[in-house]
Amino acid sequence: MSVDERREQLIAVALELFSRRPPEEVSIDDIAAAAGASRPLVYHYFPGKQALYEESLRRAGQELSARFEEPMEGPLSERLYRVMGRYLDFVQSHGPGFAALLRGGSVAASAGTSAVIDEVRRAAQEQILAHLAIPSPSPALRLTVRAWIANAEITSLEWLGERSVPLEELQLHLVQEFVAALTITAAREPALAAELASFFADERPQGPTGRLVRDLAGLLAVPGTLDALTALATEAAEAAEATEVGEAAEVAEAAGAAEATEEPPPAHSSE
Amino acid sequence: MSVDERREQLIAVALELFSRRPPEEVSIDDIAAAAGASRPLVYHYFPGKQALYEESLRRAGQELSARFEEPMEGPLSERLYRVMGRYLDFVQSHGPGFAALLRGGSVAASAGTSAVIDEVRRAAQEQILAHLAIPSPSPALRLTVRAWIANAEITSLEWLGERSVPLEELQLHLVQEFVAALTITAAREPALAAELASFFADERPQGPTGRLVRDLAGLLAVPGTLDALTALATEAAEAAEATEVGEAAEVAEAAGAAEATEEPPPAHSSE
Repeated sequence: MSVDERREQLIAVALELFSRRPPEEVSIDDIAAAAGASRPLVYHYFPGKQALYEESLRRAGQELSARFEEPMEGPLSERLYRVMGRYLDFVQSHGPGFAALLRGGSVAASAGTSAVIDEVRRAAQEQILAHLAIPSPSPALRLTVRAWIANAEITSLEWLGERSVPLEELQLHLVQEFVAALTITAAREPALAAELASFFADERPQGPTGRLVRDLAGLLAVPGTLDALTALATEAAEAAEATEVGEAAEVAEAAGAAEATEEPPPAHSSE
Repeated sequence: MSVDERREQLIAVALELFSRRPPEEVSIDDIAAAAGASRPLVYHYFPGKQALYEESLRRAGQELSARFEEPMEGPLSERLYRVMGRYLDFVQSHGPGFAALLRGGSVAASAGTSAVIDEVRRAAQEQILAHLAIPSPSPALRLTVRAWIANAEITSLEWLGERSVPLEELQLHLVQEFVAALTITAAREPALAAELASFFADERPQGPTGRLVRDLAGLLAVPGTLDALTALATEAAEAAEATEVGEAAEVAEAAGAAEATEEPPPAHSSE
């Protein structure tokens, strides 16, 4: 084996071990044994376990980032659904060992591991923003995407511990949560709202968005739901209008806001 | 100063310093100077910086958990809105120093810090589930709540770095994302769907949910949106029906699913 091949082999073996167990439970001896090498040979290539751990994490990060790549074709939610399938597959194979690091509080955390993780998160965010194809994403949209990535991370890591729901349900749920988060953000940004219309127009009934729309329509059939939402929409529209012409106090009283014990939410414009 | 008082004073001073700067930038000398104490005196009470850091984090965690406490009164989204106000206030005052630890990758991470962080996250989850007042929350609902907590953490920590949107917008947005996540989860769980109806019935027009409903109604006025959603809802309903009677292939073809290059989302029941 050449020097380069041996180095690559050690990294591959280490990545395999560090993916399955937390770093505390993997020793240089374990890595040497799995690689069919001696302990001194491992130390010849790497100064110690932390260096091998960080290199393994770097490789894992590259592999994960590569899974985010997705052709810019077809309905957006189906693209994200395919990406999430590959992501969840990665979590299953590498998650057990790196979970503690990602959740914060691993003893193997360092400036090096932190940089790798940040880089992968940034790659995910940029991929999603590229697929959204919005020329200058607003700070609020960037924040929405970043927060959804955290949501996906934690959801999948928590799932790994308990596997309490089918993986396919998780995959669909995460994509639908993204669609919902995007919609809420669009409700505050006219430019994004226009994009959202064409996003919905490109979606298909069998895709995650079509399913979501159908599921939400199903919710409206639950007794009381449609009435409650209609009342909120109507009263809210009336309240907004009244507030605009300076009748806030009257409306607040009529709607029972006098019961509020603490400061009410601030006035909020939908422009 | 008694022994207990001195100890409490050192922790208070350390908490103040560790809240403003990452642990690497706070020395025992800094703590001693701020406390008007000598370096040996600090070491008399604590074995080293890490111990003081962990104790500070523990206190911060207790303070944060106390902010989650909210009377079980009034519309749910308004309760959560008030909690988020206190939470974001805490993030502003303590976030700068503890951000790296929460994001994963702090050199001060340890089993001790990990336990504290997990405990706070669990407290947040239990508080929210208690307010939802659902006797036996399903694994999917627990996961939804946990993921939203991660969302709130990351959103607020990212915000801290750039402060690119007004804090009030963040507060409202996070609450509305929770309402959306709860709704999506309810769309798959009949028991939760029934609870959701009474949740909506208790909401008020000026509250976060009322504003969300109004904003979403506003989105429907954006040209193309209502048409696209109606088409999805109708076709999706038809597709679901057709699938149930075994005409999946025909429907898939009609809807252009033949274009799909990878596996389509799995069949998904809304029961």
